[in-house]
Amino acid sequence: MQRAAARALRGARTLPVRARSAGTGPPPRGLLYERHGEPPAVVQLKDLEVAELGDSDVHVKMLAAPINPADINMIQGTYATLPPLPAVGGNEGVGEVLEVGRRVTALKPGDRVIPAVNGLGTWRTRGVFPQETLLKVPSDIPVPCAATLSVNPCTAFRMLADFESLAPGDSVIQNAANSGVGQAVIQIAKASGIKTINVVRDRADLPKLVERLMALGADHVVTEEMLRKPEMKDIFKSIPKPRLALNCVGGKSTTEMLRHLQPKGTMVTYGGMAKQPVMVPVSAFIFRDVRLRGFWMSQWRKDHAQGEPRLRRDGMDRDSVTSMMDALFQLIRRGQLSAPACTQVPLQDYKAALENSMKPFTSSKQILLL
Amino acid sequence: MQRAAARALRGARTLPVRARSAGTGPPPRGLLYERHGEPPAVVQLKDLEVAELGDSDVHVKMLAAPINPADINMIQGTYATLPPLPAVGGNEGVGEVLEVGRRVTALKPGDRVIPAVNGLGTWRTRGVFPQETLLKVPSDIPVPCAATLSVNPCTAFRMLADFESLAPGDSVIQNAANSGVGQAVIQIAKASGIKTINVVRDRADLPKLVERLMALGADHVVTEEMLRKPEMKDIFKSIPKPRLALNCVGGKSTTEMLRHLQPKGTMVTYGGMAKQPVMVPVSAFIFRDVRLRGFWMSQWRKDHAQGEPRLRRDGMDRDSVTSMMDALFQLIRRGQLSAPACTQVPLQDYKAALENSMKPFTSSKQILLL
Repeated sequence: MQRAAARALRGARTLPVRARSAGTGPPPRGLLYERHGEPPAVVQLKDLEVAELGDSDVHVKMLAAPINPADINMIQGTYATLPPLPAVGGNEGVGEVLEVGRRVTALKPGDRVIPAVNGLGTWRTRGVFPQETLLKVPSDIPVPCAATLSVNPCTAFRMLADFESLAPGDSVIQNAANSGVGQAVIQIAKASGIKTINVVRDRADLPKLVERLMALGADHVVTEEMLRKPEMKDIFKSIPKPRLALNCVGGKSTTEMLRHLQPKGTMVTYGGMAKQPVMVPVSAFIFRDVRLRGFWMSQWRKDHAQGEPRLRRDGMDRDSVTSMMDALFQLIRRGQLSAPACTQVPLQDYKAALENSMKPFTSSKQILLL
Repeated sequence: MQRAAARALRGARTLPVRARSAGTGPPPRGLLYERHGEPPAVVQLKDLEVAELGDSDVHVKMLAAPINPADINMIQGTYATLPPLPAVGGNEGVGEVLEVGRRVTALKPGDRVIPAVNGLGTWRTRGVFPQETLLKVPSDIPVPCAATLSVNPCTAFRMLADFESLAPGDSVIQNAANSGVGQAVIQIAKASGIKTINVVRDRADLPKLVERLMALGADHVVTEEMLRKPEMKDIFKSIPKPRLALNCVGGKSTTEMLRHLQPKGTMVTYGGMAKQPVMVPVSAFIFRDVRLRGFWMSQWRKDHAQGEPRLRRDGMDRDSVTSMMDALFQLIRRGQLSAPACTQVPLQDYKAALENSMKPFTSSKQILLL
């Protein structure tokens, strides 16, 4: 799977034997970077090499692709896995199939697709990708939803499903509640009857943010400072202490959040926005038996790439990619899972979009229209 | 169970209805503290009240009892659970049954017993304890082994058994390798064919300590400083990276140890000698999927107090108190588990013993002869 993604990135440089040229119009364009650095400085809109369509390849016209924090870190060179340079940026997005190779049966022209793996380089007008790097998306899923589906809602879904057996009425606490994952957690939890306590950083327009997260289905929104205050007790008069904590920050904020976790509860770390380690008092391990885990969607995808559904103890096949995607499509159709607040930006305005995506306290995701 | 222990501590102050006086000789003596503070200052050797023998009680002549770090913390008032004051110190020890209440069938005069719970107050010449707070020990188990069995070797046994399924050839890394638990880990692992990497603090007599731990069965002994050095790679040429790390320190030492854990491996924290939190880089959770847990023998005993053996997935009944104790007795009989290096001290010399037990870099456990 990784090799397939690498091949997709390199475009036409590794030619399959029975390849034919993909399309004949103007060359595809994309946001390329040739060296690591600050994205507005190193990313450039360039014509890309014309890729060849191998027998198992799919030629895709990209429709829209968001700018996520992980994309920024990849360009900066600080992410755990980095594609060979030069590389096209972007890991999420949605496209429409233009043509398929002779051996491709699961997809046909006109189908909507999203990435099944990291590192495809979605910030481009067109691309040729191996079929196994793509997932089909029903055409009634709105473009902004589909474009932001493959990383954040999947991460939220898995973290709610894989670490604690949560029942309706149980609660979850999360920081960075305003992030793409955070908003998906609020909505997926709400649809399952699970209460959420959402931690955000204090800011000028806090009441507006609180209102927006409550409208998504948040039960409680608190600032990092409030985590330390005795008023937190009031929350736990109406809902139980959380059995699951989701951490995307690190540092002191995480230590404070951990304080509210139920004994034997689990904290899952999936990001480190504060660029500080997770700090845990020894007593939390010994006397409260808290469990600390980590989650990375890319690794989950690798582990589940064989398409072998594994049964959970409750007999539900929630572990397969297919069943997860079907569950997410259902939530979207029922209006229970919406795309994050976003600003749609034409491709040529990418520099402003990159700059906006890196501003602190950004509440709106930048989505490139391709 | 906790109430029973509390009753044992209070001695004769809560009298069962059909009680009779336990023994008629000179009154029992014990190391009592009436307030929390530094042990040599607040602990005093005093005559204790004569306890009454209830129908379900056991009158025990104590033989020997060690001074453990947890005993010190209890007296200082910094431990998580504290008995009501005044209290007799000591949580481990071995005694001989003098007489039993009318309803006691599992024990008889002459039997050897050790505490089944924390907080019995073992630093005394005689005591009356509820039968469910005691475990019988075969009389062929040497007194120093029996006196140091109920906390440290049990902790070591459980941590090796309950968190990762270790097979012969697998490896474990631990810090504070010279502690009571550390020495038991080395020996129990060795008997199971599991390799140990043992981290100790650098000290003047390091070669002697290394020699002693190697003689116990340690495969590798390294200092905290060596954890950071490239020479660590040499160790992993001959043994696999550890799937289990046992942490009794906290702070930077723990972060360095964690670096060597296998992906998806587990670190279990059971102590915090450095009085610093456990610090984990976010990347270890996300990209290496390390799992952090805690362990507390007292909690395990509470959870398993009903005597209900629970089957593990491999069908082995390793989860019951009985099977754990039998396994430990077997190891002792085969010479595979010895008592920690210890200095036996007559009861009246308790002040020196308390002081010696609190010295840094102590390699010899103080055992009070009662």
